[in-house]
Amino acid sequence: QTYTLSSLAGVSAKLKPLDTFADRHLGPNASDVQHMLSTLGFQDLQEFIKQVIPEQVLVQRKLKIQPETGYTETQMIDHLKELASKNKVLKSFIGRGYYGTITPPVIKRNILESPEWYTSYTPYQPEISQGRLESLLNFQTIVSDLTGLPIANASLLDEGTAAAEALSLSFNNSKKKRTKFVVDFDIHPQTLSVLKSRAIPLKVEIVQLDLKSETVFEQLETIKSDVSGILVQYPSSSGSIINQAQLQKVADFIHAQKGLLSVASDLLALTLLTPPSQFGADIVLGSTQRFGVPLGFGGPHAGFFAVIEKLNRKIPGRIVGVSKDRLGNRALRLALQTREQHIKRDKATSNICTAQALLANIAANYVVYHGPDRLKKIAERIYGYTSILAQQIKDNSAHELETTQWFDTLTVKLNGATADELLQRAVEQYQTNLYKVDSHTVSLSLDETVTEQDLVNLTELFTAKAISVSEIQNFPEFPAEIRRSDSILSNPVFNTHHSETAMLRYLHYLQSKDISLANSMIPLGSCTMKLNGTVEMLPLSWPEFGSIHPFAPKDQTLGYLELIKNLETDLADITGFAGTSLQPNSGAQGEFTGLRVIKSYLESKGETQRNICLIPVSAHGTNPASAAMSNFKVIPVKCLTNGSLDLDDLHAKVEQYKDQLAAIMITYPSTYGLFEPTIREVIDLIHSNGGQVYLDGANMNAQVGLTSPGDLGADVCHLNLHKTFAIPHGGGGPGVGPICVAEHLVPFLPSHEVRPIAKHNELSIDSVSSAPYGSASILPISYSYIKLLGATGLPFSTSIAILNSNYMMARLKEHFEIAFINDDGVKFSGHEFIIDLRKYQGKGVEAIDVAKRLQDYGFHAPTLAFPVAGTLMIEPTESENLQELDRFVDSMISIKKEIEWQIAGDSRGLVLKNAPHSAEDIILSKDWETRGYDRELAAYPLEFLRKNKFWPTVARLNDTYGDLNLICTCPSVEEVAAGSD
Amino acid sequence: QTYTLSSLAGVSAKLKPLDTFADRHLGPNASDVQHMLSTLGFQDLQEFIKQVIPEQVLVQRKLKIQPETGYTETQMIDHLKELASKNKVLKSFIGRGYYGTITPPVIKRNILESPEWYTSYTPYQPEISQGRLESLLNFQTIVSDLTGLPIANASLLDEGTAAAEALSLSFNNSKKKRTKFVVDFDIHPQTLSVLKSRAIPLKVEIVQLDLKSETVFEQLETIKSDVSGILVQYPSSSGSIINQAQLQKVADFIHAQKGLLSVASDLLALTLLTPPSQFGADIVLGSTQRFGVPLGFGGPHAGFFAVIEKLNRKIPGRIVGVSKDRLGNRALRLALQTREQHIKRDKATSNICTAQALLANIAANYVVYHGPDRLKKIAERIYGYTSILAQQIKDNSAHELETTQWFDTLTVKLNGATADELLQRAVEQYQTNLYKVDSHTVSLSLDETVTEQDLVNLTELFTAKAISVSEIQNFPEFPAEIRRSDSILSNPVFNTHHSETAMLRYLHYLQSKDISLANSMIPLGSCTMKLNGTVEMLPLSWPEFGSIHPFAPKDQTLGYLELIKNLETDLADITGFAGTSLQPNSGAQGEFTGLRVIKSYLESKGETQRNICLIPVSAHGTNPASAAMSNFKVIPVKCLTNGSLDLDDLHAKVEQYKDQLAAIMITYPSTYGLFEPTIREVIDLIHSNGGQVYLDGANMNAQVGLTSPGDLGADVCHLNLHKTFAIPHGGGGPGVGPICVAEHLVPFLPSHEVRPIAKHNELSIDSVSSAPYGSASILPISYSYIKLLGATGLPFSTSIAILNSNYMMARLKEHFEIAFINDDGVKFSGHEFIIDLRKYQGKGVEAIDVAKRLQDYGFHAPTLAFPVAGTLMIEPTESENLQELDRFVDSMISIKKEIEWQIAGDSRGLVLKNAPHSAEDIILSKDWETRGYDRELAAYPLEFLRKNKFWPTVARLNDTYGDLNLICTCPSVEEVAAGSD
Ligand SMILES: Cc1ncc(COP(=O)(O)O)c(C=O)c1O
Ligand SMILES: Cc1ncc(COP(=O)(O)O)c(C=O)c1O
Ligand SMILES: O=C([O-])O
Repeated sequence: QTYTLSSLAGVSAKLKPLDTFADRHLGPNASDVQHMLSTLGFQDLQEFIKQVIPEQVLVQRKLKIQPETGYTETQMIDHLKELASKNKVLKSFIGRGYYGTITPPVIKRNILESPEWYTSYTPYQPEISQGRLESLLNFQTIVSDLTGLPIANASLLDEGTAAAEALSLSFNNSKKKRTKFVVDFDIHPQTLSVLKSRAIPLKVEIVQLDLKSETVFEQLETIKSDVSGILVQYPSSSGSIINQAQLQKVADFIHAQKGLLSVASDLLALTLLTPPSQFGADIVLGSTQRFGVPLGFGGPHAGFFAVIEKLNRKIPGRIVGVSKDRLGNRALRLALQTREQHIKRDKATSNICTAQALLANIAANYVVYHGPDRLKKIAERIYGYTSILAQQIKDNSAHELETTQWFDTLTVKLNGATADELLQRAVEQYQTNLYKVDSHTVSLSLDETVTEQDLVNLTELFTAKAISVSEIQNFPEFPAEIRRSDSILSNPVFNTHHSETAMLRYLHYLQSKDISLANSMIPLGSCTMKLNGTVEMLPLSWPEFGSIHPFAPKDQTLGYLELIKNLETDLADITGFAGTSLQPNSGAQGEFTGLRVIKSYLESKGETQRNICLIPVSAHGTNPASAAMSNFKVIPVKCLTNGSLDLDDLHAKVEQYKDQLAAIMITYPSTYGLFEPTIREVIDLIHSNGGQVYLDGANMNAQVGLTSPGDLGADVCHLNLHKTFAIPHGGGGPGVGPICVAEHLVPFLPSHEVRPIAKHNELSIDSVSSAPYGSASILPISYSYIKLLGATGLPFSTSIAILNSNYMMARLKEHFEIAFINDDGVKFSGHEFIIDLRKYQGKGVEAIDVAKRLQDYGFHAPTLAFPVAGTLMIEPTESENLQELDRFVDSMISIKKEIEWQIAGDSRGLVLKNAPHSAEDIILSKDWETRGYDRELAAYPLEFLRKNKFWPTVARLNDTYGDLNLICTCPSVEEVAAGSD
Repeated sequence: QTYTLSSLAGVSAKLKPLDTFADRHLGPNASDVQHMLSTLGFQDLQEFIKQVIPEQVLVQRKLKIQPETGYTETQMIDHLKELASKNKVLKSFIGRGYYGTITPPVIKRNILESPEWYTSYTPYQPEISQGRLESLLNFQTIVSDLTGLPIANASLLDEGTAAAEALSLSFNNSKKKRTKFVVDFDIHPQTLSVLKSRAIPLKVEIVQLDLKSETVFEQLETIKSDVSGILVQYPSSSGSIINQAQLQKVADFIHAQKGLLSVASDLLALTLLTPPSQFGADIVLGSTQRFGVPLGFGGPHAGFFAVIEKLNRKIPGRIVGVSKDRLGNRALRLALQTREQHIKRDKATSNICTAQALLANIAANYVVYHGPDRLKKIAERIYGYTSILAQQIKDNSAHELETTQWFDTLTVKLNGATADELLQRAVEQYQTNLYKVDSHTVSLSLDETVTEQDLVNLTELFTAKAISVSEIQNFPEFPAEIRRSDSILSNPVFNTHHSETAMLRYLHYLQSKDISLANSMIPLGSCTMKLNGTVEMLPLSWPEFGSIHPFAPKDQTLGYLELIKNLETDLADITGFAGTSLQPNSGAQGEFTGLRVIKSYLESKGETQRNICLIPVSAHGTNPASAAMSNFKVIPVKCLTNGSLDLDDLHAKVEQYKDQLAAIMITYPSTYGLFEPTIREVIDLIHSNGGQVYLDGANMNAQVGLTSPGDLGADVCHLNLHKTFAIPHGGGGPGVGPICVAEHLVPFLPSHEVRPIAKHNELSIDSVSSAPYGSASILPISYSYIKLLGATGLPFSTSIAILNSNYMMARLKEHFEIAFINDDGVKFSGHEFIIDLRKYQGKGVEAIDVAKRLQDYGFHAPTLAFPVAGTLMIEPTESENLQELDRFVDSMISIKKEIEWQIAGDSRGLVLKNAPHSAEDIILSKDWETRGYDRELAAYPLEFLRKNKFWPTVARLNDTYGDLNLICTCPSVEEVAAGSD
């Protein structure tokens, strides 16, 4: 047996601790493995793997990961604690888009630490996702209410990328004709950097102006016919609130040019401040971090994005919409899918796929818990503290207060001290971080966590005088002239759950409607819904990881930096590459980053003409979308009917475009789940024609320790840490999409404006995310995953993932057609395989019927219609045990019988068409006598369901209705009342 | 407005942090309070309270609790962290019943930190408790399997009290004739102390003998006719495993005398060791702590208790049994309730009520997760480490190894060093604690957490030589001659859920069957199911509280000691008393302790003849049971039909017994929920006749800050911290039942053998729990509760609890009879009230029908048949909001309509008799055409249920069937297979 979890034997094996993780991570035990192997006709796992993975692909380079056999759970926790202790938690009033916040403990425990919330998938199957959908609808309603704009999405990756989406949207809105985008000077530096990295490939020029100045309109006038949009920050990065009349003039100007006004804003400020809608904003965007989401060294946090009505089909990202189910009951689902890249491919204007659902849900529930009154109090308190401090600085110091109207941020020009001196004193005497603007200017942003002691400290820091809080006579009120006058958040959901008990129940109520990994296997092909181990998740709860500002001084973040460095090294080892960037905060973001790196590399060699990106037709929609965003011309490459890449077509396309060939993007094993033996040929072909090879690592779970992109000869790959490396999917995010690159591409990896990262140099591309290390606070998850499995456990785990998949396929093959697999050709799948249901089309059964019917059996459907319409792609992962695999297979076999009924005209087959069956359908529908099948068949087609039944809470969704009648905010009290009549 | 949460105004109110707890703990907001007050005809809360609480009772002494207005949540966490940092976590190989263990993270997160598990109630309503019941049945099966005895209960409070129960059971088994109980010398010292405190009132003499000696049979011979039982520890306290042949002889001896052999044992050892059943044990008992339950400075941990078949009606505590539901499906419920004190009252032989369900569930799931093979590996590894160390000590040191056959514990007689020196060196050089046996003897017990480094350290400590683990040639195997040969834990449940994913799903599956506070109000009168706030629960997860051995050196436990001291002081303040003991680990245990204190006090005054305890007939069953255990003669006092104590009867009884009068036990407000105005008279009467007044504090939630036992003149009270002071009920425990006493009783508070507590003196009674501070690790919950509400918040909270109750009562009064409340007499209830359904008896509707039907409405039933048969007692607590109160009331009103149907012979009334309705009943039952009511009425009698339906997983339980066919372990594979045919 070549693969074992531990190579220890004898005494030392017996001395070893037994709280091992690897065997807990894996579903099957040793005897299950033997059973599955023998079902497949093998005795030995290594023999099996050799049959599955082509010889020229199976590398099995020994990984360098330490410890070799992995940490035990206890060792891992100890090690993480040690890393944590190297981060120093100080009070951070650094601001610039990141603020101290208090995650209400009831939300922390019941969302952030609840597997039911964090292990669920993006709610593409609405009938078993109404809980998350309701919560995301609340999120959209909050954004819409506070910005004043009617349409909001269910989160973006962060504020920087939200700003970049605004740029893109504006550019596209001008039909790509207007190539200038105006940005106010006083914008977060990291936002500017992300804007640049998105503008460069689009060939959009960013023009920075001082929008608050009187003379700006003259400047605007000179470029007006080229401007697609204007972006201003409100309150601004340095803390000012630009005059609203001025902003109205800016809006009028840009609207006269048919351009768009975008406003980066802060939702907490907007609880008090006149909303941007009032002065003509078309787009309002920003971060919801300070609504209860830990700083986490920069992320993940949910960006938000709201638009005016007429842009509703152009808004990027997912939108939850209100629709109806088959029975006419109100139900929620993701709306307007037709806008997205999986449909529009290289015509898509955004590549966003995984977003920040979990963080959006935390933010939304923060608002549900506090409600409008408490939120306003929080904002007023911050304003009051800021104002008292401002007064102290004005009255009692020689420093100059640069900010004249503020919400929470003051910029102070120092007299008699350098910024460095002041910051150092703040750290040493008061354990407080401020922000250095320039050598003699600092800024600070107060937040929800501010205390009387902070006020005393900060006053003393700036004025060298002690202030006694009890002597404060006045608590400054938010100025009436900039205060909003409308009522906010009046929907009942924001005015009901304010006791902890009520909040707990609301969260539990939402959660109970959703299928997550805590219920059953989620066999989504291409998504790798594996175990998100508890030990891996623990550090997310620790303040030493949670309460670190991304711009905190380096010496306060040594634990993070050590972890990041090790993770970069391990990922480079695993992918066979030389360098890693952890900055991209989703897979799609990784694609964009990788393509930007390739482009910059080619340009550095003077090969600016290379702009063709070959992409197989089977590719995931984000690939062409990312390529298009990177200003590549996408040329599709055909696939053969046996699933493999059409090499003839490839050769032809390469030949045709060889002078402009920039890159190919391929997924390996392919999106069809196949280990194509020709991969090295393909790579060589591209290289020999001057192109670079981008490997989409979404399927890395079939490679780790067995082969690697680097070993195969590719140049760059992205990884979905939220697939292969155990970050939970969070119901639609967060994700981390690092890229690993070969030596020659390392210099081009992204850097960061505010907090330059180690490898920064003049070749570095601009930032792709707001934060230097993207979604840093979830990196400990993947780090732990790797360190728990170790160099021995990782390839073993990969092998089990492949074994599980082939075992299921072998059993299902007796009952269903498996796409691209047959006894004459490719006999084995990789870690996933495709059930082909196309032969039933036109006979009254569609793939969606099977997907929906699986819900009645308690399962989340496999991936539907990707990569092939009319099919289901199944990926069990290594974490599912034999029992669960069999339970799923048995359910599919039972459904096969139902398909046959339906095709034969047996009325029992209608059970498929009416699936899923909610309890309400079973109990309240009046047509049971005439349905053609009975309630038992509907609800309990197999015995195990009587013991363990998950109820879809609505019947099948009516997508058309919802898209025609787009509603993406909570209904008002009146609407609810009317609806229930 | 006299009651406000905060007395701050103006600027300082605005500066205050907003993460306040008090207003989150309370359900109703200010406008709800006004609404409820005006429904009741009041405008002001203080005015209302004055009407509810008699003038002579309403004291409103200002509490001294600091901080006065309570900590905010952030401040509380900071403060708790600071206390935690004063505890020092060292490796503890102290043993003596407490061992290091690893709580599997998946269990920690999904049970210990899951409100769904910890907020549920004792599973008296089986239809909505099948999850916990299944888990407790697993627990019983584990105990039964490992001990070899067929009947096991669902946990006892700890090992000491389990031993005391064995003593009691043996004594009772001898019809109280045999007054000697033999205990081996080598038993845990704390067990001996608990045995003594239980033996003294029973007038049982504990005879300590050396049962391993050859000559012991001669000694036994001399007392044989007086011996009711023998208790031996196996493995013994000092680590030896007494020869099994010898134990068989002991068993033969005692059986010949018709006495019982009890064995205190260790379940982990029993995975390897021949089980006590093999040498004739009748009772096996111990602690399951080392099955994943944190040390927690001594508790809570689940004690276990197993007996031979013929003792099955005599086993103390709760037993889960297998039965059937109305439809004939297998279902679980608490069996043999007729044995318990709430039925047998002063004839009961045990007072145990609240036990350790949550900890039993952790232990059970630890076994589910590990399974028999891994458990044996854990045990073998411990044995191997212990043996290697033993060899090193023998071979390489001058010390003398006293233990000859061991499992995990070695006792070492030191040569050349004192025990103190060695222990100090262990702490200083190796951060390790051992146990001091005497001045020159130490012992150590290895455990699951032992590592190679520990072995190196300990070897060096004892031998002053370095050992290189890689040189160890042999890993000692557990000796065949004492090894058990049967297979253990063969039930599928222990052989299935070994991956983390499978375990997560199993826990989620169990949890989803149960109603907890995360679902809906649990309005159990006398149980105070209030919010268990997240902040309060946090410290349970921290190693600084979890990983402290109860016998750790004092300077490592300063955080605990500070917290304990403050909590004692605050509780004394709240109760108006002078001293507190936190040792009792349940309410009933508190009763026993308080009565023992009273008795000792009376005896110290020479009043040994005082042995009468007056107890109103309305008292909770534990009161007479505890009094009987304390060897008081219980004299019941009548109650009038209006619910108040029959003062004439009381006077008569006092007069009759005044010379023997020892005490009265009363509950205030009474178990009927009434603030009896005559309470001071009653107390004076008892005092003037030489008796002491024991106040049962189960209803303290109606007193805190408004009045107190001390202010009323009582002498002692117990508190249920798991009611009033926010410790979650845990599905049937843990609990804490401290007693507070007046000045004259302080000297009698219990001490501890091993770790004397501050107030120890020669008057102190023996221990009532194994651990010095009882269930120490959950004390931070109550501590936080008090500190979060502060002196201002506590009385306000009490007032809201009373308001909520009266509001519900006012609404329900229109539809139901309320016992003891009427417009001419007492108009208001305290914090709970009784719905009297007796008038429907004989007309086809019983109280239980209403209780079961409430499940169909998604509610846990109120307290059924206590304190009055045929009634339901409702206690909403302050944590429920107006919406939830109304939802419950509306459900009751809807049920009223169903009652009327039933009485009128309308067939729709049968919905009550068939309640609750499981989904299976709705879907699979064939009789729906003829039921007389439809599925909609069954499942969705009110609109809100369509949105939020909780499904009972079984139909109404058949109690008789289960008691007649007692099965209290998991069915074997064969039985399951047979059953499903
Ligand atoms: C093959 C492939 N590539 C790229 C992506 C995009 O990753 P992300 O959703 O993290 O942006 C996915 C996501 O499902 C994928 O399956
Ligand atoms: C009035 C009363 N006294 C005593 C007790 C016993 O408390 P415990 O269950 O903690 O032993 C109870 C428990 O319900 C009670 O209601
Ligand atoms: O378990 C109780 O009776 O509180």
